[in-house]
Amino acid sequence: MSPSLQDTLEAIQPVDPGLVGHYQSRLDQLTKPRGSLGRLEEIAARFAAIRHRPDDAASPPVAVGVKNDRDGRGQDDDGFGKKVIFTFAADHGVARRGVSLYPPEVTAQMVLNFLNGGAAINVLCGHYGITNVVVDVGVDADFGEDVRGLRRCKVARGTADLTREPAMSRQQATQALQTGIDLAGEFAAMGFQVLGTGEMGIGNTTAASAVLSALSGLDPENTTGAGTGIDGRRRTRKIELIRQALRLHRPDPADPLGVLCALGGFEIGAIAGMVLAGAARRRAVVVDGFISTAGAALALALSPSAADYLFFSHCSSESGHAPVLKWLGVRPLLELDLRLGEGTGAAIAIDLLQASWKLLTQMATFEEASVSRSS
Amino acid sequence: MSPSLQDTLEAIQPVDPGLVGHYQSRLDQLTKPRGSLGRLEEIAARFAAIRHRPDDAASPPVAVGVKNDRDGRGQDDDGFGKKVIFTFAADHGVARRGVSLYPPEVTAQMVLNFLNGGAAINVLCGHYGITNVVVDVGVDADFGEDVRGLRRCKVARGTADLTREPAMSRQQATQALQTGIDLAGEFAAMGFQVLGTGEMGIGNTTAASAVLSALSGLDPENTTGAGTGIDGRRRTRKIELIRQALRLHRPDPADPLGVLCALGGFEIGAIAGMVLAGAARRRAVVVDGFISTAGAALALALSPSAADYLFFSHCSSESGHAPVLKWLGVRPLLELDLRLGEGTGAAIAIDLLQASWKLLTQMATFEEASVSRSS
Repeated sequence: MSPSLQDTLEAIQPVDPGLVGHYQSRLDQLTKPRGSLGRLEEIAARFAAIRHRPDDAASPPVAVGVKNDRDGRGQDDDGFGKKVIFTFAADHGVARRGVSLYPPEVTAQMVLNFLNGGAAINVLCGHYGITNVVVDVGVDADFGEDVRGLRRCKVARGTADLTREPAMSRQQATQALQTGIDLAGEFAAMGFQVLGTGEMGIGNTTAASAVLSALSGLDPENTTGAGTGIDGRRRTRKIELIRQALRLHRPDPADPLGVLCALGGFEIGAIAGMVLAGAARRRAVVVDGFISTAGAALALALSPSAADYLFFSHCSSESGHAPVLKWLGVRPLLELDLRLGEGTGAAIAIDLLQASWKLLTQMATFEEASVSRSS
Repeated sequence: MSPSLQDTLEAIQPVDPGLVGHYQSRLDQLTKPRGSLGRLEEIAARFAAIRHRPDDAASPPVAVGVKNDRDGRGQDDDGFGKKVIFTFAADHGVARRGVSLYPPEVTAQMVLNFLNGGAAINVLCGHYGITNVVVDVGVDADFGEDVRGLRRCKVARGTADLTREPAMSRQQATQALQTGIDLAGEFAAMGFQVLGTGEMGIGNTTAASAVLSALSGLDPENTTGAGTGIDGRRRTRKIELIRQALRLHRPDPADPLGVLCALGGFEIGAIAGMVLAGAARRRAVVVDGFISTAGAALALALSPSAADYLFFSHCSSESGHAPVLKWLGVRPLLELDLRLGEGTGAAIAIDLLQASWKLLTQMATFEEASVSRSS
């Protein structure tokens, strides 16, 4: 039986700062000026500390089990481990209120596009050797039996309209979280070391902005952007709808599950569950963009220690993202003006994490290379 | 016979903005909100326009010759082309003035480390499938016949001390530029489509800061950083040495070759030549960090049109880099606090360029995927 939310929360342990320091010391012995690989060193040390296993205490992965791979071949043998991005798809009742440039049926159409390999996330996962798992956690469509490769975890055919009623019931919120918990557990058990978040859902920037305003206290003006590319007039309307929802539900930031029920999306709940279970299983969790950040923020409200396992991939051009990342106190790796979701930013960041791991495990030390140290 | 600097400058043609627009139109038809891949779209459109060949007018690479690769395999068949990073190594007379944490012999030691595969650039080129070429363009050491894999293009055993005399003669400057021109031409002829810059040379941030102050008019205070990691006191001394050199040589920014002679390094000259020849051969040129930017700035002073072919990979944590990039009017792709050189930032950016190319050439259009367009 897979662990419950409560079991998952109880299993999350902070990453040992001593281990992070151990791997930073290793980085300091490599043939480069100290610290000169910047953020790659930061993520390499933390990832290695996450990747470290207690029964390996005398033989950290940096010292054994890692094939020296200086000829640049054998990417699969680098000890980094397998990596997966979950693209959680769901629909939103609020999408009928004109908050997106696209009609709601695009969610289901894009799910088929993912399964056919035609979307951006497919191209990037192919490029980086990342497994992509497409999950129907609440799409408003019936995918027939002939649709192959889809994980069928539908909670309901879309949420209710958060401007008029709670987006979902407590039972549905728990089910969405459990979907993420179960998938993370399944892939952790298969040996995946890195779990990336992703999503697709017309209307989901509205839900994400509402959730993030509820959790952070930031005004919807600061958490709300143009989503798929709406103009200023429609953005003003979107902000007004979010204010209306916050007035209606009066969500309590101390009750993250209540925030999810009132305002969330099924994909946001699933991402939160996946983040928590990833941390509980000591896996690196790479967070994609704005909607994924809403899921991660919910997870962090439930378990602040999960932060040690999170790598925020990028700051998107969705205007609410930068203020929210600042509120969370995190500095993402990339700023490429992405605003697509699906897991696209996470894919790029996962590969940077792998590159940084290889630097840690494959570079020569000053001693090995007979290079003089600094004065 | 390989082209001279003059031939090279005459061969540089601007990239056709109509072609860039053509590829941007293609990007706008792909299954994603318009512009939602941000800077990846910007570099994909420009790279495709560079990659486009006139005799291919009716059949741009996006439409033919590109294997549809939706299963994520066959990275070598994506039509992107081969990519190379040149790591130009040279020594600097000014290194004897205590401007670095490391002794000058580290340049030669690191060349051997590159050839043995133990340095950061080896790990990253291995990870990304990039060819790395190590070039001795002026190392103060004799590499014996038993040293394998080194391109031997030594102009001299290091430059003269720029604080006391010109760093090099006109003849040496021309030879350094020609080294870059010849290598870029050779690899372009072998079918390499992307040329990346890189360097190694103890003392070369001092030369780069001096060259960049001379070209830009920026005060050395703004172009000079901590290099390998010197403290504030030594940085103050480094700035004073650069001021002294500028007073001594009074370099004329309208005479870029004169600036190179007075202040430059052999690797900075070789990078400038490589940039110019890359542009002349219609190849994408990916510029690494601070020292590479000095080479690129020299190239742009000689041929402003070369800018169309340049992709600035990252803003380093060397404090002079950001002001210089601003002066050049360019926004680099990454900001990862790197300050290592060798071509490490270029390697990461080259792979982003390849990812963006795959997005352009492999994603499905709205029509192909039967996805509804925006309202």
